[in-house]
Amino acid sequence: MIRFDSDYIEGAHPSILEALLRSNYEQHAGYGCDSYCDRARDIIREHCKDASLGVQFLVGGTQANVTVIDAFLRSYQGVISADSGHINVHETGAPEATGHKVIALPSKDGRLTVEQIAECYHSHWNDHSHEHTVQPGMVYLSCPAENGLIYTKAELAAISEFCHAHGLYLFVDGARLGYGLMSDECNFTLADLARLCDVFYIGGTKVGALFGEAVVFKDEEMHRSFRYAIKQHGGMLAKGRLLGIQFVELLQGGDECLYLRLARHANEQAARIREAFEKKGIPMWIPSRTNMQFPILTKEQQKVLSSKYVPEFWGTYDECRDVVRFCTSWATKSGNVDALCRDIEELL
Amino acid sequence: MIRFDSDYIEGAHPSILEALLRSNYEQHAGYGCDSYCDRARDIIREHCKDASLGVQFLVGGTQANVTVIDAFLRSYQGVISADSGHINVHETGAPEATGHKVIALPSKDGRLTVEQIAECYHSHWNDHSHEHTVQPGMVYLSCPAENGLIYTKAELAAISEFCHAHGLYLFVDGARLGYGLMSDECNFTLADLARLCDVFYIGGTKVGALFGEAVVFKDEEMHRSFRYAIKQHGGMLAKGRLLGIQFVELLQGGDECLYLRLARHANEQAARIREAFEKKGIPMWIPSRTNMQFPILTKEQQKVLSSKYVPEFWGTYDECRDVVRFCTSWATKSGNVDALCRDIEELL
Amino acid sequence: MIRFDSDYIEGAHPSILEALLRSNYEQHAGYGCDSYCDRARDIIREHCKDASLGVQFLVGGTQANVTVIDAFLRSYQGVISADSGHINVHETGAPEATGHKVIALPSKDGRLTVEQIAECYHSHWNDHSHEHTVQPGMVYLSCPAENGLIYTKAELAAISEFCHAHGLYLFVDGARLGYGLMSDECNFTLADLARLCDVFYIGGTKVGALFGEAVVFKDEEMHRSFRYAIKQHGGMLAKGRLLGIQFVELLQGGDECLYLRLARHANEQAARIREAFEKKGIPMWIPSRTNMQFPILTKEQQKVLSSKYVPEFWGTYDECRDVVRFCTSWATKSGNVDALCRDIEELL
Amino acid sequence: MIRFDSDYIEGAHPSILEALLRSNYEQHAGYGCDSYCDRARDIIREHCKDASLGVQFLVGGTQANVTVIDAFLRSYQGVISADSGHINVHETGAPEATGHKVIALPSKDGRLTVEQIAECYHSHWNDHSHEHTVQPGMVYLSCPAENGLIYTKAELAAISEFCHAHGLYLFVDGARLGYGLMSDECNFTLADLARLCDVFYIGGTKVGALFGEAVVFKDEEMHRSFRYAIKQHGGMLAKGRLLGIQFVELLQGGDECLYLRLARHANEQAARIREAFEKKGIPMWIPSRTNMQFPILTKEQQKVLSSKYVPEFWGTYDECRDVVRFCTSWATKSGNVDALCRDIEELL
Repeated sequence: MIRFDSDYIEGAHPSILEALLRSNYEQHAGYGCDSYCDRARDIIREHCKDASLGVQFLVGGTQANVTVIDAFLRSYQGVISADSGHINVHETGAPEATGHKVIALPSKDGRLTVEQIAECYHSHWNDHSHEHTVQPGMVYLSCPAENGLIYTKAELAAISEFCHAHGLYLFVDGARLGYGLMSDECNFTLADLARLCDVFYIGGTKVGALFGEAVVFKDEEMHRSFRYAIKQHGGMLAKGRLLGIQFVELLQGGDECLYLRLARHANEQAARIREAFEKKGIPMWIPSRTNMQFPILTKEQQKVLSSKYVPEFWGTYDECRDVVRFCTSWATKSGNVDALCRDIEELL
Repeated sequence: MIRFDSDYIEGAHPSILEALLRSNYEQHAGYGCDSYCDRARDIIREHCKDASLGVQFLVGGTQANVTVIDAFLRSYQGVISADSGHINVHETGAPEATGHKVIALPSKDGRLTVEQIAECYHSHWNDHSHEHTVQPGMVYLSCPAENGLIYTKAELAAISEFCHAHGLYLFVDGARLGYGLMSDECNFTLADLARLCDVFYIGGTKVGALFGEAVVFKDEEMHRSFRYAIKQHGGMLAKGRLLGIQFVELLQGGDECLYLRLARHANEQAARIREAFEKKGIPMWIPSRTNMQFPILTKEQQKVLSSKYVPEFWGTYDECRDVVRFCTSWATKSGNVDALCRDIEELL
Repeated sequence: MIRFDSDYIEGAHPSILEALLRSNYEQHAGYGCDSYCDRARDIIREHCKDASLGVQFLVGGTQANVTVIDAFLRSYQGVISADSGHINVHETGAPEATGHKVIALPSKDGRLTVEQIAECYHSHWNDHSHEHTVQPGMVYLSCPAENGLIYTKAELAAISEFCHAHGLYLFVDGARLGYGLMSDECNFTLADLARLCDVFYIGGTKVGALFGEAVVFKDEEMHRSFRYAIKQHGGMLAKGRLLGIQFVELLQGGDECLYLRLARHANEQAARIREAFEKKGIPMWIPSRTNMQFPILTKEQQKVLSSKYVPEFWGTYDECRDVVRFCTSWATKSGNVDALCRDIEELL
Repeated sequence: MIRFDSDYIEGAHPSILEALLRSNYEQHAGYGCDSYCDRARDIIREHCKDASLGVQFLVGGTQANVTVIDAFLRSYQGVISADSGHINVHETGAPEATGHKVIALPSKDGRLTVEQIAECYHSHWNDHSHEHTVQPGMVYLSCPAENGLIYTKAELAAISEFCHAHGLYLFVDGARLGYGLMSDECNFTLADLARLCDVFYIGGTKVGALFGEAVVFKDEEMHRSFRYAIKQHGGMLAKGRLLGIQFVELLQGGDECLYLRLARHANEQAARIREAFEKKGIPMWIPSRTNMQFPILTKEQQKVLSSKYVPEFWGTYDECRDVVRFCTSWATKSGNVDALCRDIEELL
């Protein structure tokens, strides 16, 4: 069976494993205070064109999300999210477990609009009993969203402007950021994100690393204290060097760094899958231009494909059809996509 | 400089890296539901001689500690710990961040006695205003303790008996468990721990793995729900295979498994260091028989040794002397210990 | 100005104040362990026809809600609620502050159906990644709901049956329970509630007391521990007698107790207001038969009435009209309602 | 039986009940936004000689403590307290339930010294692994302490100076503040407290009110947000007027206000009890000059007195003797103290 059910079904890009092997007997301080982490921080600051940024490394996305939310927000504040946002649906209530409500706004396509955010914010403050409701303190965007869609630079700028005019932190979950940056529709850069957001992260787990998320933030108060929050949330890796080594490997080399090349590869393979479905006249649920594609398939089509491939069931579309997810990654072999495309072509 | 400041300053045993390389392109389900994790579970059940145990894998010790504490305890319950216990002093209040008070009992040597636990328990329930104080719900022991000492089987059995007679969970933090099991003073086995505790973990991070702690528990209700708690605390590793692969590598082979051999090596090197200090007439703070040794050194002695070696400052002993920690690990080279012993011999 | 904006704008029924005066110099143990509280417990058990029930007294509704939610649920569980439920919208994220997500289901009329609850429950457990989502652990109903509607006995029985067949606690928020019980549409009794729910409370604050909610529950484990939860949530009133005295005063006398008579009075006054609006041809937003009435008024109608009366703005209905709430209570004077009805009659 | 076991065994001073009766039918907005609360705020600002202070009213002490702690502190910060402090021992872990560790320092007499606080603070920041320990964010003092002792103005000033020089909030728990202010040893005023603390409260529950604590603070950010925290912690009383009415009644009248007169009465009665014990040669455990007295009594002495009186067992002193607490209050009758003094005189 050939799996397309997620972008973290293989290990890591071989360069990363080699780097781990090379450095294995070196002795380093723990907890992210080693020279690899420092070097990775510098590389990230260069990508972001801002030498003053704070950078900390965490093992996984849920951990990154709750550490940021809990470190930045006051106890009585909540975080605005699309109702489909990862923090709202797929983290077993991790944000709430830190005491903060996710203020979920209905979203048609997995993204929030600045109008929605503004409406939520103003309806809170215009409510004479606003003290009886959770105070919005942060906006959470996932980019790419859980369905692969990304924001435009203009959309991000508008949201950023609103947030900063109204005392809201802007936080972008970049668990799949590489795929977004390398999408042919993307018109923002890491430097734009660093400028527009208060905090965002560059996801490694789903883009070629064994694991690891690099959290980037500019709040000065956070600089002093964010590491307490990491430790308190169980996110401070003893052998922190493992995170530094991986991000150095992924991000060194500027615009042609491994991270971006791997993401580009995955997007290209995803585009081939999308084109095969479209050529066949099979509709796509969402016009994703990143590494996840969502054809709407009949039960029969699913049955045929599932004899050789493992996609992920995403949801019921109508009585006869379901939305199914095909994911590519750094590890997706071109030959496997060839085979899939041929089999798509032969579907009834 | 040769570092002896902790047991996690190097990477992982090469066999682990090789296993990661070998399996790198295999495709596996995420989140600990892969065949490596299942195999590691079986191996652990064999070591523990109990096929009914639940086993889950977490990345680090703080995470393991708070996930267990929060999953097992009711909201109004607290966990009894030695005041020197890791959860009380070195986790940035992580247990409290999940809402549970650490009921810290004074400890002379880093260990709790059954008498202390009983006194704490009874003084709670004999207090007519006990509802105004935290209800003890769990006993936390670290074994080896933070100073390297271990419990005897009789001590563990007495504590276990008390706990189970009084509705307290018994939880053993085994972040350095291998070093304890391989200590020449140890008279308990993994099977004893599994029998006496409700939950304990086999620490990988400090005993040869890149990272990873295997949590073992027998509560049936927990079987059904513990994974929710892991996810909620941000501890569910996407590429969970990494944990399974490492624990298979470490624990396969029964009593001669890699994990125990690595621990034995570290203990032997630590014994050589201890003997060198003792031969020199330098007193040891604590009679540790595991991989950490704590000589009491004058400022001058520290200065001399610190020209070549990096131990860890542990605390002030008296006006002239400090307690200093020397740690060995799977990676400690015999030649480095040779050099250290020679330099100890030449101290004034 | 005559206020109709809520049911807690006056003090307490004079009998309660007299009882406080009468008992003022008596000396009593604190924290709800006095003879008045014990007597109130017995009276409640008689109303509920179940001598084994646990009864504890809290000062307010939010406190009662979060204490119940946090005491009953495991850390990884959440509580199912209508999206309009008080715990979801008007408690500043208090349930989330105890770590529990409110699983909000869309509700057309402020009530949940058993079908909705079943769908939510089954969609959780049928999801192969259910461990990544909050486990439903409790169903929260407000009865009367925030809009004054109540459940039928058959609806409560169906929800109760589903909950108990599937391991969910059923919790009914009875902040306005008296008005529900005295509604001419109500076909359930306190004894029915006690039989169908795991926990519910009899609201005093909004039905004639100075403050106070009597939480009734049957879980045996909770009997032993609920008071810890109360204290931990800051809800254990030092002079607990104040709660006992009030509930004795309100609930003694069986079916003709003060509590039910006050609620009946408020409902009757509310019915007069409703009839006045209906006679005038002004539509009601919701067919409430309890103490809150929600006419849909034009801006002009609001302006006219607001020269003498203070209703509460409830929400925008359409471009020209708003939903407005008129509340009655134990203290509503018949003469004030006479005047209001006359003024309604004269509206354009 | 005549009870001396606490200062909240009776109801409230009759003036308060009369004020509640007088205002009972007035209609007021809820949640502390009524004219009585506003008037009470102004009176408190006058006592404190600072018109810019924020004042909010809460029902009880535990609630006041956790609301302040959780509202002021960041998630990774803890609160320094004497180990005997109420928040550390008698609140069922309520501060920890909000996520914050109580950093308990050993205290000989229930009070903290500035040297202890400084030592704790510096040992944190001098620790190279301080990020692994809870960051001190606030100092909590109870004044009078749980044993009746108070701080001098010089001690408070020194602690305040240290706190403000080092970024720590200073919070004084004044659950029994009146008894402290009226102690013949007291050399500070409400205005001093308001100047030296960031936040403190004037306890009503134990000094003549039915219930109620007035929290006074000067942090501007808190002004905007403290009420969210109150609501989130279940502490926002629906009929908030009850708190305003009581504090107006207690505090109007400047230095001769009811609150201070009641406290003076209680202190005087306590002094008579102390003198009776001392005259008899019975040692006192602590030189308290407030409303609580702690004689060290033999079992026989306890047995004799307990035939007529109910003091509170405080702790074992030695094999033969216990520390016993006698509390007076606003309601303590002089005749009862006469009788007690006579019976003390006749003890063997």
